[in-house]
Amino acid sequence: MSDAFVGANLKSTNDGLKWAKAGPDVIPAWVADMDLPTAPAVIEALHRRAAGDLGYPSWLEQPTGGPLAEAFAGRMAARYGWSPDPALVRPFSDINQALQVLLHVWTEPGDTVAVHTPAYHPFLGTLESMRRPLRPIQARPDGDSWRFEVPDLAGCKVLLLVNPHNPTGRVFTREELAELAELAERHDLMVIADEIHADLVYGPERHIPFATILPARTVTLTSATKAFNLGGIRCSVAHVSAPGVLKALDAQPPFLFGSPSVLGVEATVAAWRHGDAWLDETRALLDRNRRTIAARLPEEVTYRIPQATYLAWLDYGRTGMAEVLEEKAKVLLSDGAAFGPGGETYVRLNFATTEPVLDELLRRIAKTEL
Amino acid sequence: MSDAFVGANLKSTNDGLKWAKAGPDVIPAWVADMDLPTAPAVIEALHRRAAGDLGYPSWLEQPTGGPLAEAFAGRMAARYGWSPDPALVRPFSDINQALQVLLHVWTEPGDTVAVHTPAYHPFLGTLESMRRPLRPIQARPDGDSWRFEVPDLAGCKVLLLVNPHNPTGRVFTREELAELAELAERHDLMVIADEIHADLVYGPERHIPFATILPARTVTLTSATKAFNLGGIRCSVAHVSAPGVLKALDAQPPFLFGSPSVLGVEATVAAWRHGDAWLDETRALLDRNRRTIAARLPEEVTYRIPQATYLAWLDYGRTGMAEVLEEKAKVLLSDGAAFGPGGETYVRLNFATTEPVLDELLRRIAKTEL
Repeated sequence: MSDAFVGANLKSTNDGLKWAKAGPDVIPAWVADMDLPTAPAVIEALHRRAAGDLGYPSWLEQPTGGPLAEAFAGRMAARYGWSPDPALVRPFSDINQALQVLLHVWTEPGDTVAVHTPAYHPFLGTLESMRRPLRPIQARPDGDSWRFEVPDLAGCKVLLLVNPHNPTGRVFTREELAELAELAERHDLMVIADEIHADLVYGPERHIPFATILPARTVTLTSATKAFNLGGIRCSVAHVSAPGVLKALDAQPPFLFGSPSVLGVEATVAAWRHGDAWLDETRALLDRNRRTIAARLPEEVTYRIPQATYLAWLDYGRTGMAEVLEEKAKVLLSDGAAFGPGGETYVRLNFATTEPVLDELLRRIAKTEL
Repeated sequence: MSDAFVGANLKSTNDGLKWAKAGPDVIPAWVADMDLPTAPAVIEALHRRAAGDLGYPSWLEQPTGGPLAEAFAGRMAARYGWSPDPALVRPFSDINQALQVLLHVWTEPGDTVAVHTPAYHPFLGTLESMRRPLRPIQARPDGDSWRFEVPDLAGCKVLLLVNPHNPTGRVFTREELAELAELAERHDLMVIADEIHADLVYGPERHIPFATILPARTVTLTSATKAFNLGGIRCSVAHVSAPGVLKALDAQPPFLFGSPSVLGVEATVAAWRHGDAWLDETRALLDRNRRTIAARLPEEVTYRIPQATYLAWLDYGRTGMAEVLEEKAKVLLSDGAAFGPGGETYVRLNFATTEPVLDELLRRIAKTEL
């Protein structure tokens, strides 16, 4: 494969974070956005808005983000049998902001946060920079999937639940969620449910919103940015069904955490209301890709096909493999060590790309001598 | 003028806050955005980006907002002879957020903030909701313009300087700024300089950035949203040349206040780098409009032609005139009482509209019996 061939499969502008550290001969598969354009409905909506009114939106003074709240509620009802209250929606820039704001208004330095590990690394960074100790809920290999070893959660203040889970791609079962809900009740936990990958669950698995099980303790976080490849638009949703947390949030100065843009809201609403044909096609591509990986990896690499997400969590049984693969295979992956306890011998591979690029990527990995 | 005629002059989508309370026969001239489309360069940049990469931008991990910081520094140098350091830029959603964040990290409830009054009403709302007492610096009529009566600033913690001033449209002179700088030194004040209207100064007046006079105590706030009619994009700039304030900001959790979107940054950079032909034309229109008002107002209304902004601050010599004019003239203006001490007998008129709409608006005002 020539350099030109790889380039031809990348997005037209190529100025994303994903490409930032990739030379012309390197395939980037580390940052969690897609090597694909977004849904046509989103592009059309943005074109229309850009040519129209970019002034203050009519919903500027609403705390719920205007059309965002209704679009969120509609989508949850249509896809997940959950009818959230739009009045409980508060918009944020992204999930990382929402998490820091929630920890800021609800916890103090020293308060412990339970998280399933390995974990999305910016969340671990947040706990460290905000001095909230981590109580790991460790993932253990379990046949062709994973189970989580729940420790005693006494003394914790928050459960940060990432479902579907990043980086393993596990979708939590109703039984697992019920057990976590029981523990949240017993230990008086606020549950922050990051469900950003919900639209990327492969059948027969089903996504179950945690707020359908324990609404009074839950803040649900999501956005269209993951499933529709809109990481740059900075528009996400918190649905705050835990009344005390809503009260604490609303007691803050009203503009302190900013507000979403008309363009971010426009893109999100278009994706959620008119993007499903594109999403179905994209999910089908990702489904093929997750299976292709299983067929093409070297024998010594252990891979459990994810039930959701476009992330493959690969165990090489030795540390430092991201560096080795960057150097020898010219493939940029995420180093598992960044994902905390249990990730040291892993790399994370982003397979949201076209089939020819994935093919070349797997060819490079397969021929790399260890 | 028929309803249809008024409608034909409004922006194509008409879903802005400006139109929110206006019936089909009402001319809205209250919310401070323009009744005009933005610069073609901005629309083109947004179209290009919407069809390209909307994933995480390459500058996501930079605290300065990537191309935003350089575009800001370039514009200040080209237009105002000021060379700010791009490394001191921190992006925010809008000026209201930036103000609340600065008060949050630098002051405590009970700390007094000096503000020139009458004042942009959301700032007064911020001081009230954050329980920072107001020390008014009162505007007094002074011939065909205004002077400000500076009281003793002992015991203040912050000077919130809005220059050019909203709602009077006054541009502060070098002498006035030097006096304020001297007081800031004497009383150990942080100066928050909201300079969002700088690009809307009419000759021969000149905008002088406060940071050129007293950088070590200044945080400069600005954005392209006012001059280029982009209130909905949520992208503004703080240039934090006061070292202690920068340190306090950077000690906060890194995602707590959110981050600007690729679309907001794209629009701002395009406006600042490629929007000046449009801006010159628009400023010429506004310049004609500000003079037209002087020629057409009833004799009993006192109007001092603003040196900047598209806001006319009209003294009717009696209270409640916004309500009267809404009812009798079908014109929506801002009630001066909301602008704090000294505004009670005023209304604020937004004249950023086309000449035919302004003509109809002034006709309606002129024929209103008082």
